[in-house]
Amino acid sequence: MAVNLTPPDPKSLLSVAGVELGFAEAGIRTPGRRDLMLMRLAAGSRAAGVFTRNSFAAAPVQVCRARLAASERFRALVVNAGNANCGTGEAGLAAARRTCDAVAGALGCTAAEVLPFSTGVILEHLPVERIEAALPDCVASLAPAHWAEAAAAIMTTDTVPKAASRRLQWDGKSVAVTGMAKGVGMLQPDMATMLAFIATDAGMSRALLERLVREVADASFNRVTVDGDTSTNDSFVLIATGGSGAPELAAREDPRYAQLAAAVTGVAVDLAQAIARDGEGATKFITVRVNGARGEEEAVRVAKAVAHSPLVKTAFFASDPNLGRLIMAIGNAGVADLDISRVDLYLGPVKVIESGGRAASYREEDGAAVMKPAEIEVRIELGRGGASTTVWTCDFSYDYVKINAEYRT
Amino acid sequence: MAVNLTPPDPKSLLSVAGVELGFAEAGIRTPGRRDLMLMRLAAGSRAAGVFTRNSFAAAPVQVCRARLAASERFRALVVNAGNANCGTGEAGLAAARRTCDAVAGALGCTAAEVLPFSTGVILEHLPVERIEAALPDCVASLAPAHWAEAAAAIMTTDTVPKAASRRLQWDGKSVAVTGMAKGVGMLQPDMATMLAFIATDAGMSRALLERLVREVADASFNRVTVDGDTSTNDSFVLIATGGSGAPELAAREDPRYAQLAAAVTGVAVDLAQAIARDGEGATKFITVRVNGARGEEEAVRVAKAVAHSPLVKTAFFASDPNLGRLIMAIGNAGVADLDISRVDLYLGPVKVIESGGRAASYREEDGAAVMKPAEIEVRIELGRGGASTTVWTCDFSYDYVKINAEYRT
Repeated sequence: MAVNLTPPDPKSLLSVAGVELGFAEAGIRTPGRRDLMLMRLAAGSRAAGVFTRNSFAAAPVQVCRARLAASERFRALVVNAGNANCGTGEAGLAAARRTCDAVAGALGCTAAEVLPFSTGVILEHLPVERIEAALPDCVASLAPAHWAEAAAAIMTTDTVPKAASRRLQWDGKSVAVTGMAKGVGMLQPDMATMLAFIATDAGMSRALLERLVREVADASFNRVTVDGDTSTNDSFVLIATGGSGAPELAAREDPRYAQLAAAVTGVAVDLAQAIARDGEGATKFITVRVNGARGEEEAVRVAKAVAHSPLVKTAFFASDPNLGRLIMAIGNAGVADLDISRVDLYLGPVKVIESGGRAASYREEDGAAVMKPAEIEVRIELGRGGASTTVWTCDFSYDYVKINAEYRT
Repeated sequence: MAVNLTPPDPKSLLSVAGVELGFAEAGIRTPGRRDLMLMRLAAGSRAAGVFTRNSFAAAPVQVCRARLAASERFRALVVNAGNANCGTGEAGLAAARRTCDAVAGALGCTAAEVLPFSTGVILEHLPVERIEAALPDCVASLAPAHWAEAAAAIMTTDTVPKAASRRLQWDGKSVAVTGMAKGVGMLQPDMATMLAFIATDAGMSRALLERLVREVADASFNRVTVDGDTSTNDSFVLIATGGSGAPELAAREDPRYAQLAAAVTGVAVDLAQAIARDGEGATKFITVRVNGARGEEEAVRVAKAVAHSPLVKTAFFASDPNLGRLIMAIGNAGVADLDISRVDLYLGPVKVIESGGRAASYREEDGAAVMKPAEIEVRIELGRGGASTTVWTCDFSYDYVKINAEYRT
């Protein structure tokens, strides 16, 4: 049960000039569901990406990294669910490349212009022949309006498809930003992969696109956590087709850059929050805000120490305003010389910790009241400086254990 | 239900010359249970300690640190369960000192010779007057043979008391090492504190004792993890009374140092493993061994990445040989330039990962068979160097969530 998350209204998802989306049932792991997604990009489209830091990066991640380093222009993304093509060695790399070859043949581009993505079980051979067999269906269904269907086709055990849009107006030209993501709903094992693809029909230089994809990841996907584990296949790719006809962005100082960055970040934050809302077994959506840090890195460290703590997360599941656990988690962030006598903490509007101790005004009933709703904000004031951050997470429920333990039994 | 852990046979616990233990019912949180423990030390006893790195170190931890920095000779330790005296500010420090004053008055020593310890709920005022009222009972029960009773009196929600002994013979003199610990069984909140006290009647110089306490902590308590959270009150104190009559150890080169270090480490490892066996909701006791690391820090990082991963721990709960999650966790250890093609992994005697992929010889039935017992060893061969380590942990069960979520409901 995702927390306050419903499938996106297809009408709310803007087409992006230069992007068409197709889908098919390839039967990669489970027959009878859409598990293959193809994104065709108009000639001249640029792409940039950020990828998992896990040492066991999957074969498609390795192929994407190499291709994005070698080139900036791409014509297609191909995504399969059901198999991660990870821990598969040279055969896995060959399978990822063969998938791209098939797409190139079907679309009339080169394999180097195709980026592959996989999500699903680890350590199993990718059944490329099933992807090849389903590609004609994918191509036949290509259409600019298929964002919702495409978002559903990349799901593994997400319970809700995730997609969002923003629109800009530049000198009378309409610029669209639309993205999709899949998150970490692990009804089956090893499917913790986060994949996200955001496209805009703005045009951008390669340098600016590579900068923007990192800025956006840091402000969105790198701020969401379910259980602190990082998948072998995590990928986020940002695409700029230039199809809107608006002049290409080439300088960060161009005021349109900030507008576009805000729009792309808005889509990415929507998707990142949707991933936390749809976390395994989630019953609560939790926003952890940290203010007053000496730097952003410090703020993130404190926020993640709270968002990762199993003791804090089980307390949220129980709707228990367990102040001791919050204090313990902040204290574990490893902030050198943290002066706890300056630390305040709020649950929603209720001040619960003041100067490192229980707030004099705090009443247990007030804490219990703000812990009940499905959405809770924790605000931590460190009193050390001017840096802030926000991290999103979910609680830790029986169903987390159930989902992750009961597969195969 | 602790995993293969029974209360220590009181007859197996050696008295330590110069150490007497007493206990009482102070009613600090729950009436009718022993919750106060006093350890009286003979004149001339030395102590050294290591403490939590949590920024919100509790008041007694702050007092202990200051007293251990100022002096080396101590006459008593006083430990209460039921209240952690943490997040209590200046009043908390005063309460810890007042507890020591009362002990000093009762035993006829100075307050500076008394070390205080607390474990229990955070952010609540320590009821010192109840400790003062129960102290006469504590003093009246002081006896060298009371290790088992003392170990039970420091428990919070541990299900089994934890104590162990070793004996050495030095030139015809018998030297005893006996220790007790409490761990992390959190039927009530905020009681994640680990306390451990080990005493020997060997005599040691202060410098050697301070070195030994760190070496032992690194080889035992710092190698055990239940949920990765660190308490505000964690404390480990090593005491050397000199009461055995054996000549004092003053040089690391003295061959008796290695013998004593091995005995103290043996007791500490017994206690550390007992803490993992008695982890919240534990159904499995898991040993993670890492070989072939470039350095010990790297080995520990990989072992803890595996031991901390909620996805790995739920797979152990399910007795599911989930190879993908093990690979994912190793990859998340943040080892730079890890060559995954050199990584092998064994579950018990079964090789499951070979050269970073599924071992050719691996059969799912073999993996399932070794995952069934209550004790499982994971061995990871990194193929990078000669450093090794071992970490102990437990699985992650419904009961972990239940124990940590259902308090107060």
